[in-house]
Parts: sequence; C-alpha cells; structure tokens
Amino acid sequence: MFYVIGLGLSDEKDITVKGLEAVKGCERVYLESYTSILMVEKEKLEAFYERPVITATRELVELEADEILKDADKVDVAFLVVGDPLGATTHTDLLLRAKSLQIPTSVIHNASILTALGSTGLQMYSFGQTLSMVFYTDSWKPDSWYPRLEENLKIGVHTLVLLDIKVREQSEENMARGRLIYEPPRFMTPSQAFNQILYTESKRHPAPKPPSDKPAPQKSDSDSEDEDDFTDPYPTLLPPAETLAISLSRVGTATQKIISGTLTELAALPEEEFGGPLHSIVIVGKRLHPLELEYAGKFAIGGEQGGWWKVGKEVYGVERETF
Amino acid sequence: MFYVIGLGLSDEKDITVKGLEAVKGCERVYLESYTSILMVEKEKLEAFYERPVITATRELVELEADEILKDADKVDVAFLVVGDPLGATTHTDLLLRAKSLQIPTSVIHNASILTALGSTGLQMYSFGQTLSMVFYTDSWKPDSWYPRLEENLKIGVHTLVLLDIKVREQSEENMARGRLIYEPPRFMTPSQAFNQILYTESKRHPAPKPPSDKPAPQKSDSDSEDEDDFTDPYPTLLPPAETLAISLSRVGTATQKIISGTLTELAALPEEEFGGPLHSIVIVGKRLHPLELEYAGKFAIGGEQGGWWKVGKEVYGVERETF
Repeated sequence: MFYVIGLGLSDEKDITVKGLEAVKGCERVYLESYTSILMVEKEKLEAFYERPVITATRELVELEADEILKDADKVDVAFLVVGDPLGATTHTDLLLRAKSLQIPTSVIHNASILTALGSTGLQMYSFGQTLSMVFYTDSWKPDSWYPRLEENLKIGVHTLVLLDIKVREQSEENMARGRLIYEPPRFMTPSQAFNQILYTESKRHPAPKPPSDKPAPQKSDSDSEDEDDFTDPYPTLLPPAETLAISLSRVGTATQKIISGTLTELAALPEEEFGGPLHSIVIVGKRLHPLELEYAGKFAIGGEQGGWWKVGKEVYGVERETF
Repeated sequence: MFYVIGLGLSDEKDITVKGLEAVKGCERVYLESYTSILMVEKEKLEAFYERPVITATRELVELEADEILKDADKVDVAFLVVGDPLGATTHTDLLLRAKSLQIPTSVIHNASILTALGSTGLQMYSFGQTLSMVFYTDSWKPDSWYPRLEENLKIGVHTLVLLDIKVREQSEENMARGRLIYEPPRFMTPSQAFNQILYTESKRHPAPKPPSDKPAPQKSDSDSEDEDDFTDPYPTLLPPAETLAISLSRVGTATQKIISGTLTELAALPEEEFGGPLHSIVIVGKRLHPLELEYAGKFAIGGEQGGWWKVGKEVYGVERETF
C-alpha cells in the first residue's frame, strides 16, 4: 500500500491515530519537504514513529517517483505531507502514477491552514479562492494575485493568502560554481505581505491628485484581468485604511498569534510583532458577520479603540452584538 | 482548560494523537451531535477514549453553555466536533463565552470536508465560497444558494455544496402532542441534490421555445440576487448537460466513493449508486486544470466515453495530458 498521510499543522503529535498506525507499519517513510515545513526536527519525527525518515526533495519526487513507489504493491510505503496531503495538485501526480502501476493507495487526511483559519473567528465557508503571494524583488513584483483578490472582494467573500516559502535556494555564487549548497529557508512575514499589497495597490490605484474624503465605492463592474504593471482606471476595492485584514502566525501551535486590523495598521506593525514562521494572512470580505467581527476583534490592534471596530462598523456596516 | 477538539471525518482513529491525549485527561467529554455526525457509535468512542461521552444537543449547547463550561478553569473539559472544530461559527460562540469567563481554551484542529475534497483531484485553492443546500419540500424550495453558485461560476472557481442533515426531527404528530420523540436522522443524497439543482435551474432558466443547438454562453454580466422563485432573464451559467460535477460519499473512510460526470448524468444515476451517508457534491468551475480533469476523470460515469471527458474538452476547453 502507498500511503499519503497528512501531518497537520504543528508538531509530531498532530498526526492522526490512524496515520501513526500506518506509519509504524511502513517499510519506507518519506517526508515531503518542499511545499511546506513542519515546525519540528526530523529526528523528533523519527523517534516518535520509531522509523527512519527520508527527506523527499522536489527533485526526488519529480524525477525519481518510481523509486518512492518501488515495491509499494508488496510492502507499505508512507509519503508524509505537512497539513492535508491533497491541498494542492502537487501530490495527485504521485497518486496517479501509483494507480497506473496498479499500486493500492490510501490517503489519510489532516488539518490544513484552510480549516485552521477558523481560529480567526471567520467562517471557512465564507472564503473565496485562495491566493499565493511570492517575494517581490527589485526587478520582479508579480501581482497576478491582485485580480483574483478583486474577484473575491466584489462578491464580499474573505481571502486567504498563502505566503511564499523559499527552501533549498542557492546563492548566485554557489549556483554559478555548481555547488549544491543551499541557503537557510526563508519565510515571508505578514509585514512583507501587507507591504507588498500596499505597494501593488498604490501602483494600480495611484492616489488621486485632489485628495477626497468620500469613501471609496464598494462595487465595481470592471472585469478582472491577469495583467501585471497595470494601472486600474476603476475605483479600488481595496482602500488600505478601509480594508480589514488578519495575520495568522504559527496557527495550531502553542505560540499561535492572530492580529486583526486595517491593512494600513497591519502594514505599519514592526515585523517582530508577528514572531517566527509560519504565517498566512486573510483579507476580510464585506459579507462579514457580526459574530466574525466580534471574535476576530479580540485580536484587534489598538483594542476597542482600533481601526478594526471603526472600519467594521462604518465601512463594512456590521453592528456589534453583545455576548 | 476548555478543549475544542476536531475528530476528523470517519471513525474513532481519525482524532490526532494530541487530541486523544487531551481527551484522556478530561473530566467531562461532550460530543457535538447536531451539525454533523461521525460514522461510528458513541460506545466505540467511549471505549477508545476510556471516558464516558455526553451527547451535546443543540439545546444543551445554546441554552446550557454554562453547564458545559462549568469548572473548566479548574479541570479539563473537552468538546468534540466532527471534522475541524471551527469550520462554522457555530462553536465560536462557545469559545467567546469561555473567554469572557476567563477560562483558558485550546483548539485542536483536524481534517474537514474542505480539505478532504482534495480526494476528487480538484485543488482546494481553486474553490470559491461553500454553499449549503437544504431539503426541498412540496411548498418550500429555498434556492438562495443559486446566486452564490453563479458568483463562483462567473469567476471559474469550483463550488463545494454541503448537503442537509436532519437530526432530532419530530413528526408533526409527536410535535403536536408535545412528545419528545425524534425521527431517525436523514441525510440528503447526491441524487436529491443534483435533482434539486436541475429543478431550480429549470425554474430560473426555462427551456427556450424554439430549441437551439448552439452552446450556452459562458459569461454573463447579470448581477446576482438573493431572490427565490426568480426567472433569470440572462443566459444560464449552469447548462446541466455542459456542467461538470462530482459526488463525494463517505470521504476519508474505507468505503469512500467519488463519481464524476455532467450534472445531467449524475442526476440520472440511481440513488443506490452513491451508497450510504455522508455525502457532498462539487460543481466544477471553468478554470479546471488538466491535472484536475485527469484525476477526477478516473471516477467518470461511462469511463473514457463519458460526458466528463467530452464536456471537459469541448466546453471547459481542457486538453488531456498523458501520465
């Protein structure tokens, strides 16, 4: 049997009982290490599973898939993935290959950021499509996420934005010299993400010449376009001082931290406020429910006097309920 | 500590190791029993946890929340929820209440249908807002899900539709006599759901008088409206013979069954094809990826000759890749 097993969000004990039983019966155990990273050392996993764990790099999975699947029709093999194993299509490829080799497969699900973001108090069912944001560089600021975000904002749903992780990067020098020496992993921080949003917003919707005090319109009929470096002639759906957002750091762990506020407030926070990786962010849609406002408001910058409550009431039009 | 613990999708072994350790240290263990149902008897859970399990009805949670939270600042209390515990706002209320009573809380996440639907081969990140569909009756056919579905279809994302569950229903006679006798739980089948979709579609977009062979337009500028009994003057985004959909039955269990096809094909399948509960369905958006087409095509009605492949190519415009 070829098992694809989700590890959940945080440490070695987030595996399910069913998943742990399967791992303990496996002859070979691979750990996928390039789409996400568990916040625990491989040695700790090995001790807990009582099994050696083989790190599966992108190269191994993409080029040596048959090595991973070898003999899986006779012995049990586990492929471990942080979060839920089938979040992205990354691993469906491996499952299709196993099926074409007549190898029986079994998927053991687990929590992922998509369910854990319920910790913000926002309702999972009110999220639209999920976006990914990569690190901007001096010469490359890919903002293809922007029209997708607008699509979500137009219909009022929330947006989860997954932040870039760079693992096994090579320095230019090491790459030039052909040395397989990798830089330490890099994780995008919420500060970086919020400031990248502000940057792209300012490019697409430059501040009007005569400053205006009237609130931005909430609807637009503009069609979304997948174009970069694009100045959008339509009114913005994302005025930073009037858009609510939330950062999620180390969700599902003991040091989980959630911060809510306006985009402007969040972008201005010092990076250390968020703490270490992993992080994600959420842009709050206009269909915000009073219970969502209330729960996420527990994490508001500036507490009761913060922009969260003011914008929630005046721009999102949500009245507070009492509990 | 007040623990809110996800149980995952299927049986007693889908709890995480962390969750199981927490449950075993709890003085009282409640099992939420009105938003979803685990496919395993309470006695089996009790044996596995070595703890008695108290069934928490909606009445208990909403009216006697303080009883559930009693002494949770001194002893550990667990509130178990099928799937991920924070999928809906249903339980954030309880957490807010605990916080207001200065009771420390801990949420232990788990798999939910939102992540497990990766088993269809569709990418989680390409799903829009999630819909819920309730049982239609002779006099009440609430189709407020329809404009939400249209919003998703317009931007090409997939849609998960959660199907109604009726637990603790009373017959009219028992209700009239004030007898607290409940009917057995009822679960909406994919057949019922697909046929409800076809019904509402035919009401909103009645068949044109002179039959036309040209394919329905794929875009519409119509604004969505939350109105029932509404004939939509705009072209449909949901022509049943040209819309792909997928049923998911008992996902995450050993008897999991996934079936893919056109809406017309799926609605025509005999109910027993899907097997027992729980079920969900997915409406496939136009941004279908070749790898998604391929994986979900393994479950196609009619195999290689089925409507899945024909519509995938001709209507969705996805070319097959080889693996």
